[in-house]
Amino acid sequence: MTPSISTFTTRLSDAARIVEASLEALLSDKPASGEIARPPRLMAAMRHAALGGGKRLRPFLTLEAARLFGREGEGPLRAGCAVELLHCYSLVHDDLPSMDDDDLRRGRPTVHKAYDEATAILVGDALQTLAFEVLADPATAPDSAIRSDLVLGLARASGLGGMVGGQLLDLSAEGRYGPAEMDEADVRRLQMMKTGAILTFSVEAGAILGQADQAARGSLVEYGRALGAAFQVADDILDREASAEALGKRTGKDQDKGKATLVDLLGMEGARQECRQLVERADAALDAFGPRAQTLREAVRFVVERQV
Amino acid sequence: MTPSISTFTTRLSDAARIVEASLEALLSDKPASGEIARPPRLMAAMRHAALGGGKRLRPFLTLEAARLFGREGEGPLRAGCAVELLHCYSLVHDDLPSMDDDDLRRGRPTVHKAYDEATAILVGDALQTLAFEVLADPATAPDSAIRSDLVLGLARASGLGGMVGGQLLDLSAEGRYGPAEMDEADVRRLQMMKTGAILTFSVEAGAILGQADQAARGSLVEYGRALGAAFQVADDILDREASAEALGKRTGKDQDKGKATLVDLLGMEGARQECRQLVERADAALDAFGPRAQTLREAVRFVVERQV
Repeated sequence: MTPSISTFTTRLSDAARIVEASLEALLSDKPASGEIARPPRLMAAMRHAALGGGKRLRPFLTLEAARLFGREGEGPLRAGCAVELLHCYSLVHDDLPSMDDDDLRRGRPTVHKAYDEATAILVGDALQTLAFEVLADPATAPDSAIRSDLVLGLARASGLGGMVGGQLLDLSAEGRYGPAEMDEADVRRLQMMKTGAILTFSVEAGAILGQADQAARGSLVEYGRALGAAFQVADDILDREASAEALGKRTGKDQDKGKATLVDLLGMEGARQECRQLVERADAALDAFGPRAQTLREAVRFVVERQV
Repeated sequence: MTPSISTFTTRLSDAARIVEASLEALLSDKPASGEIARPPRLMAAMRHAALGGGKRLRPFLTLEAARLFGREGEGPLRAGCAVELLHCYSLVHDDLPSMDDDDLRRGRPTVHKAYDEATAILVGDALQTLAFEVLADPATAPDSAIRSDLVLGLARASGLGGMVGGQLLDLSAEGRYGPAEMDEADVRRLQMMKTGAILTFSVEAGAILGQADQAARGSLVEYGRALGAAFQVADDILDREASAEALGKRTGKDQDKGKATLVDLLGMEGARQECRQLVERADAALDAFGPRAQTLREAVRFVVERQV
């Protein structure tokens, strides 16, 4: 491990620790202002879904992007937590029996296994709502224009034209709703929607908090898109290669379901080549930020080199 | 039918028509700004969930409350649609097999029956996201402070400390998660969370759009709470009385499931008496608005006198 990667993983795990603490506070049993009561069973199941694991890559990206503009502290942390809550909601619903039907997530029982299906649906619903509540709260940014921009960005990245739309396309790709012939453009669009849009927003959120000008915000969006695409190609490679044990979840799932991945379409070497090109694209997008963006440069390398 | 009620129902159905048209535009297949693509199957299922029926009481309340402050047009209409989208998402998820397991809604197949369970989960997820997207969009209000306030209010009313929390309590009240002994205070809290919070916010949204002062906003919240409580007592009475045919959905459901309602706790005459008191409370809250609030006074009467 190079010193740079070692520094990077320390930064990443330090961020994960403060994100965990912040999520824990958001998911306490104590009702917040404007709430009537928090049912303990719901809160326990939400904590099961959102705490105790994960690299917290998305909040890390928000924190690091905000830092480019000198923004640190509670605002970026809360915005990062909102993205993470949104991500956790998507995992809980994706794992449901009628969706991907997964029993394990990060080596632990999924929410519908540890609790029940109705609770898991409500947990996902409430995690989504909480994500928007956190963003709209003045504690995230005193400037309401920033808060509205964050809400709008997260909604567009995660809704019918983003993550949820991508999940529907993914179910269609299994052939559930009739024969599914997907070419390379279809697969890329599906991936951009299902996972790329939220990763891109994780980065853009930092630019919004930092009140970046159009050029800087555009560069970070471009970086986020390259990172999001790299994340997905790396995921396809991992899905093909890794053992179930190492991942703590079932693998080879896409193949089982007959879904085309970029590894099918480009071959393993083609997929690896694409990862390298995406890292270059991400680097190029960060040019204007100079050495300050070093951690983000390392983040995209981490994403393609990770083993889980 | 008194002339006043006849005017009221015309107003209500006129509002329902413009809300329907507005929802239809929001749920078109054409991607909006910032979206990658809208999968046609998802959009068709979302339209099935949100179009073609319903009194549109919640948007009506938003429109009428905003009108007290001279606000009309696109802003209140969009805010009302957001509340309606949120309401529709809750119906789709509540109808799921693991929740209330309903096959019919307004006399038509529920989304998981007309499509499938996975699609229904995603439809609910995407309707929720769209509600927040609509509120955060500058088209709803040029002032970002208003947009943030609307997002925050809807999130608090609908999340873990509001509607979703109430739904979890409702499942618990069926005895799913152990013996459920509910006293009057428990039943009232459950109802305030599950249905009252969103109805209250429907009214408050008009005050937010109208930049009402604290006193006027507080009066409208008080009116909304009385109306929300009246709605639920009337629902309990209807559930006990009405035939399945008239409602287009199964009735006597609460009794089937052994859930305590206010009719059980207060008796039928006690429940009717409570309705009358809540109408008075709602009227009193509107005192400061004088004759301008006449439609809202009629709205609470409509809520307790409705037969569906």
